[in-house]
Amino acid sequence: MKGSFITFEGCEGVGKTTQVDRLKRYLEKSGQPALFLREPGGTVISEKIREMLLSKENDKMNGKCEALLYSAARAQLLGEVVAPALEKGSIVVCDRFTDSTFAYQGAARGLGVDFIDELNKLTCGDIVPDVTVFLDLHPREAFARKGGADKNDRLESQSIEFHEKVYLGYKEIASRYPERFICVDASKDADGVWEEVIALLRRRTSVK
Amino acid sequence: MKGSFITFEGCEGVGKTTQVDRLKRYLEKSGQPALFLREPGGTVISEKIREMLLSKENDKMNGKCEALLYSAARAQLLGEVVAPALEKGSIVVCDRFTDSTFAYQGAARGLGVDFIDELNKLTCGDIVPDVTVFLDLHPREAFARKGGADKNDRLESQSIEFHEKVYLGYKEIASRYPERFICVDASKDADGVWEEVIALLRRRTSVK
Repeated sequence: MKGSFITFEGCEGVGKTTQVDRLKRYLEKSGQPALFLREPGGTVISEKIREMLLSKENDKMNGKCEALLYSAARAQLLGEVVAPALEKGSIVVCDRFTDSTFAYQGAARGLGVDFIDELNKLTCGDIVPDVTVFLDLHPREAFARKGGADKNDRLESQSIEFHEKVYLGYKEIASRYPERFICVDASKDADGVWEEVIALLRRRTSVK
Repeated sequence: MKGSFITFEGCEGVGKTTQVDRLKRYLEKSGQPALFLREPGGTVISEKIREMLLSKENDKMNGKCEALLYSAARAQLLGEVVAPALEKGSIVVCDRFTDSTFAYQGAARGLGVDFIDELNKLTCGDIVPDVTVFLDLHPREAFARKGGADKNDRLESQSIEFHEKVYLGYKEIASRYPERFICVDASKDADGVWEEVIALLRRRTSVK
């Protein structure tokens, strides 16, 4: 028995958390065992790595070190939590995963998309999402909808050019792995997006 | 102006520290600017990663997470310390480097030598040692010479089979990169080894 591994991706403010929460309620209501995770974190060791990544003390950290730390946290999460859960037939849902590293560190921070693609492959081996839901909305529209970026968030407060690079990074990785990516038009309201998301997940994964 | 990047490698007890110390005294005496490093560590961030790697609290850490953390510490050290020093024309000497990850995590811990070779390439890019001095001595002889392994050292206290795998890992990486590796017979006494080491370094690097 093998479960389904589902990841949600997209730029800031496109509604990932809303859709993940809806999926959580849906699976709870219909009695389907599922594990909800958020990266980086999810194990004692991965949380320690998360602290290093988020601490303002570590502002000298270079991009490569940052990407490798994300990968270290991910390797621990996969071995300790994700792989055993999938083995038991559980549905595993992760809010952001390898494609965020691709879009943020690879495309926007300039480490290069091939570098991150290679690093992701080394880190994850054969544990690849069955489906990645990409909530497709240009950051300009996403920020307009939410009334501007959150100035207190280190990532959100980056320039619009940065977020455009992230968006283009997502588009590139989606075109590299079309069999894995589900691109959902996220300009619709939350109900409209959810209808499309759940219909696609029911068709493509073990979600019933 | 570009300096020389020299690494020392070998199994436990083969005399790496002795030879590195001799090189340090030699370079100091002859007024050649040099930077001596030991992995993992050498920057504030790398030292924090070192703490994570050595803490007994983190005994659930899997091999892949461990290898990625070593690489993260290394990426920071290279960017912050090694690259600028080499740019200034300095001699940089590192006690253990990528080949240790290859021998310990790749060969002995079983992550696979190709996996580590690929990870090392991603981590280091074009910063590759000019010369790697491999002090070649079978761990059985090394431990016999020092009167047995140190039981308080987490790595030394591993089984002799583990250390044999490390040794074979070194032999394999040395044969992959013969143009970089200098293999020195470390069964001789410290004076004999040093004579060979310094002669080779003077011929192959900017050491005068």
